[in-house]
Amino acid sequence: MNFLKERIQRDGIIKPGNVLKVDCFLNHQIDVAFLKQIGQEFKRRFADVKIDRIMTIEASGIGIACITALYFDVPVVYAKKTNAVAANDELYTAEVKSYTHNCTNTIIVSRKYLPANENILIIDDFLANGCALQGLISIVRQAGANVAGIGIVIEKGFQMGGTIIRNLGYRLESLAVVESMDSDNGKIHFRKPL
Amino acid sequence: MNFLKERIQRDGIIKPGNVLKVDCFLNHQIDVAFLKQIGQEFKRRFADVKIDRIMTIEASGIGIACITALYFDVPVVYAKKTNAVAANDELYTAEVKSYTHNCTNTIIVSRKYLPANENILIIDDFLANGCALQGLISIVRQAGANVAGIGIVIEKGFQMGGTIIRNLGYRLESLAVVESMDSDNGKIHFRKPL
Repeated sequence: MNFLKERIQRDGIIKPGNVLKVDCFLNHQIDVAFLKQIGQEFKRRFADVKIDRIMTIEASGIGIACITALYFDVPVVYAKKTNAVAANDELYTAEVKSYTHNCTNTIIVSRKYLPANENILIIDDFLANGCALQGLISIVRQAGANVAGIGIVIEKGFQMGGTIIRNLGYRLESLAVVESMDSDNGKIHFRKPL
Repeated sequence: MNFLKERIQRDGIIKPGNVLKVDCFLNHQIDVAFLKQIGQEFKRRFADVKIDRIMTIEASGIGIACITALYFDVPVVYAKKTNAVAANDELYTAEVKSYTHNCTNTIIVSRKYLPANENILIIDDFLANGCALQGLISIVRQAGANVAGIGIVIEKGFQMGGTIIRNLGYRLESLAVVESMDSDNGKIHFRKPL
């Protein structure tokens, strides 16, 4: 996965408050050739797992999920963010706190697009506190489907999201885990693979 | 483009008020193999045009834009929706009214990701009143870039958005143009190609 760490080192911008901006290749401008490498790597890591469907959350997960889905040959469903929604027979819902935007969103997935008993691969760009991921897992569980794996492009290893999810026994593969970063000198340290 | 019209006929759901729901394959659940056909068709239609970059708007345009970009071998940039933003040297902005959601959003694109003089292909899932598209064109013009083409998956031909954009001389290719639809009998009539 050196291509990813090299790209983060080269093009990522560290802002005070442990903010890592990768919007020049991942989540505003999108380097689609780079996403193909990401998709291939997720396929390699989950090659032994039966995947029926990829699930992500709007907006920044969608491009990654769609390109990754080409390598798994499965459909994508993305959770939508909304301000509020009445209890509803047609939707699965979860509350998700965003620390980045300091607000709480409801995320929704139509029940039609998350059948029971399927094996779901959850894909997202970032994992930090893990609130979005917890909401996605909750929705898969509501559906009676199975979280077969979780693929994250960049995990902030100094925040608790990843640790909690691994403690719960989920198979979480983060392609790059940032252990620390310094907005003064621009240095990023990555966790060594096990 | 029969594959698209057939899919809309088969899986689209017409709701009262001229609402056409295609969220089972295009903008909630995403059939990625189908998006490849869409991307190939956009490439065929714009084969004679030099394209440097594909631009779209979150969230439902992102998957279509990313898969289409594979066939053009160019980066994607997507406009983000936000509630309000102060005038800003780093951003291009436009106001976009959403009739679907009865609100006005500001859409933003970082100036860094829309260089002057590039040839931009704008891609989106739907064109109805055309407010989102007008905002995207405005942002391309602010950047001093060139709208080389506009590719829409489904145009509601009974609304004015497409007519206005064609009247202004833009090259707009809509893969399916719905002339009328009837929520009582589920029938959809498409415009015949010229």
